[in-house]
Amino acid sequence: MTRFALTVEFDGRPFMGWQRQDHGPSVQQAIEDATFAVTGERTAVHAAGRTDAGVHGAAMRAHLDITKPITAFRLGEALNARLRPNPVAILACEEVADDWHARFTCTGRAYEYRIVNRRAPLTWEKGLAWQVAQPLDAAAMHAAAQLLIGQHDFTTFRSAHCQSASPLKSLDVLNVTRSGDRIEVVAEARSFLHHQVRSMVGCLALVGLGRWSIADMGDALAAADRARLGLNAPPDGLFFMHARYPD
Amino acid sequence: MTRFALTVEFDGRPFMGWQRQDHGPSVQQAIEDATFAVTGERTAVHAAGRTDAGVHGAAMRAHLDITKPITAFRLGEALNARLRPNPVAILACEEVADDWHARFTCTGRAYEYRIVNRRAPLTWEKGLAWQVAQPLDAAAMHAAAQLLIGQHDFTTFRSAHCQSASPLKSLDVLNVTRSGDRIEVVAEARSFLHHQVRSMVGCLALVGLGRWSIADMGDALAAADRARLGLNAPPDGLFFMHARYPD
Repeated sequence: MTRFALTVEFDGRPFMGWQRQDHGPSVQQAIEDATFAVTGERTAVHAAGRTDAGVHGAAMRAHLDITKPITAFRLGEALNARLRPNPVAILACEEVADDWHARFTCTGRAYEYRIVNRRAPLTWEKGLAWQVAQPLDAAAMHAAAQLLIGQHDFTTFRSAHCQSASPLKSLDVLNVTRSGDRIEVVAEARSFLHHQVRSMVGCLALVGLGRWSIADMGDALAAADRARLGLNAPPDGLFFMHARYPD
Repeated sequence: MTRFALTVEFDGRPFMGWQRQDHGPSVQQAIEDATFAVTGERTAVHAAGRTDAGVHGAAMRAHLDITKPITAFRLGEALNARLRPNPVAILACEEVADDWHARFTCTGRAYEYRIVNRRAPLTWEKGLAWQVAQPLDAAAMHAAAQLLIGQHDFTTFRSAHCQSASPLKSLDVLNVTRSGDRIEVVAEARSFLHHQVRSMVGCLALVGLGRWSIADMGDALAAADRARLGLNAPPDGLFFMHARYPD
């Protein structure tokens, strides 16, 4: 048995999310089916994180175990051939130690959320960004974001379906930058609660619109109450950017 | 009658090109139909340039004449509402002088061509970039590109269907830059021949692959012979970026 680590790019639009579902297509299933087509083996693919329906992956990390002898290069090429026409691509495939685990060995995760701040609808970015028609104050959004940095009870920004044992998380980075009509929010942490990035971005947008003050963000966090969530941003703009591992 | 200048973004994938066609949808027709829905007037929309099937527009300029009294803001908003679900967006709409012409007043056009240089297939950029699996030498491509700068007979890089009176064109900019696995080619000129950018990019790719020397590019240009064209790049990666006007 050989364990392989994958780096996966995927367009989340046609999927119910990363995780295998009974009621629709998933990225996990697409890769598991491609693996079966290549190796004849039914094997589970484990990812660094689960993504919701409509959320994209720029460099998701995952691993799988294969019994049949095959090189990492051949496996990556063959998976890409079998993944067509799904919008899922294996960017890299490498052999790793048997105890390397895409999820449990991961020490850091980074997401990016893309907002297009303009009145005109999106064209080729439809489903790949959140279009916000009213002007957003990105500087105010960034200031409010800094109130969320550090270890907090993030219950306000947590989905009712979150399976995490604790609402306590430590947020390392939450940067908001504007370039023309594009606003990018970068979030980095060891791990996130379910919906945490989208919920934080939704509330940052309320600050950007002037409907929340910067202090309102701190109050919402301190309340540790899901009922205080102002807005959950749509999945469209969210990209899993990278996963960090020791060495 | 009032003349309005439009700035248009469009995803070229579902269209036969900018220009109205009998055999399929076009960007021009989408805007003309939306205009009719808004104003009840059948009016021609003139663009700074015609784009081929599958080519995209980031900020195409166009103009149209409306008899009915309407403000530029209202016209832009109403066109966007009526353009749905076409991937065409009016980014800006402004009143201009009656003698302003999107095509004839235009003094400069800029295109960008996007290449993704990697083995893995594209996911969300499928149809929005040209995936080239073999490694490209972007520095060699840039060096070869410089041989095309200036006024030349560009017959080698001209479609058989080109309607331009002369194959003589003056190329101002042809820059090739790499960032990670992305290569961008920026082309600027007063005007271009039909297929000129795609043909230049196709030959630059041959240089990047090592199948053409840099000198081969100069020879192909000097031959002024369409039979010497090495490769026409696909439309997928081509974006009309902007049009320049006096003032």
